Amino acid sequence: MKIGILGTGMVGNALGTKLVQIGHEVTMGSRSANNETARKWASSLGERARSATFRDAAAFGEVVISCTGGMHSMDALESVGADPIRGKILIDVSNPLQQDKDGSVILGFCNTESLGERIQRALPQTRVVKALNTVNCDIMIEPSRVPGDHNLFICGNDPAAKKQVTECLSDWFGWKIDNIIDLGDITAARGTEMMMPLWMRLFQGVIGHPHFNWQIVRGQ
Amino acid sequence: MKIGILGTGMVGNALGTKLVQIGHEVTMGSRSANNETARKWASSLGERARSATFRDAAAFGEVVISCTGGMHSMDALESVGADPIRGKILIDVSNPLQQDKDGSVILGFCNTESLGERIQRALPQTRVVKALNTVNCDIMIEPSRVPGDHNLFICGNDPAAKKQVTECLSDWFGWKIDNIIDLGDITAARGTEMMMPLWMRLFQGVIGHPHFNWQIVRGQ
Repeated sequence: MKIGILGTGMVGNALGTKLVQIGHEVTMGSRSANNETARKWASSLGERARSATFRDAAAFGEVVISCTGGMHSMDALESVGADPIRGKILIDVSNPLQQDKDGSVILGFCNTESLGERIQRALPQTRVVKALNTVNCDIMIEPSRVPGDHNLFICGNDPAAKKQVTECLSDWFGWKIDNIIDLGDITAARGTEMMMPLWMRLFQGVIGHPHFNWQIVRGQ
Repeated sequence: MKIGILGTGMVGNALGTKLVQIGHEVTMGSRSANNETARKWASSLGERARSATFRDAAAFGEVVISCTGGMHSMDALESVGADPIRGKILIDVSNPLQQDKDGSVILGFCNTESLGERIQRALPQTRVVKALNTVNCDIMIEPSRVPGDHNLFICGNDPAAKKQVTECLSDWFGWKIDNIIDLGDITAARGTEMMMPLWMRLFQGVIGHPHFNWQIVRGQ
């Protein structure tokens, strides 16, 4: 499959590398076609990996993954425009994190809106699926790093797109389909993005590393 | 132990009833001393249960539990004043939920603040511990309704108070001490209160009942 990755950070790198390794063609997009990080990444992985602008990477992908820092995702997608991703699935894995005045990590917006919703509203003809944003990128691509059952949350307005993304997450990374919880429409992105403050506290203050996940345990 | 419960809703009723049943003396507080719900509750449980004003219930308790609707907690505590709970442990179990214009449930405030922080700031000489706010009240008092291991989160500025509350949750309700995660100071209440949008989505849209909980699964 041809996949466009928007963003050259830790998450884009982890997802892009894994997808090339399992045989897909991946173009990593960034603000300029000459981005050093993206070029180094592509040249280290051989001919199935390429670097390009956000717009060209999005045009390249049959599926596009938005991995930019969440406070920059709208700018990156604005530089893509609607046409290169019309009708395509866009997987949004980012959280709109920023530093508060006191240095603590907060969300740039939340509660009555979310990044997933902003993207879907800006690109009404793109099939936005929010997924993977509740785990560290090492867990995204290798869920077995966390033992036993644990959950991913997925949401979006297009049921067929969610089904396809669920199958991709299983095929690409080994997520058990039964562990992927469909929360409904894209407004559910509020809930998954708002898990970040607790996630950060667990990461920084309790567990000390990012290799953990949530499991929903059901009673009667 | 003498325990003051602030609030006559579902949560105050569940906690108060359980605490009376296991032998504690409980006074349920509300805005007026003649609150019908509180009087009925007390008369149904015998002499260890009483009803009173918020202020008298707080004065009665060696430990006080704030169970009012989260958007009303500050008003209730203002009517208590600082003196009746000076030096005492106040367990805050509420979330500042409210309905948005479109009918969806949102938080009245979040992200850069929390109800736990507001209470601690208003009552600097009270030892505020945020706990139990991430589970339904049936699970609060009977964690074994959800099978296996699953977690509670606790936070507050006073380590000794958190230790005592942890022991109370174990003694009163049967929570395993190893499953109670200390997140640090009271600002961590932001994170646990912000789990509510996902909790609501799981409750209303996915699971269909409130008897579930989170487990943090650790990898390497």
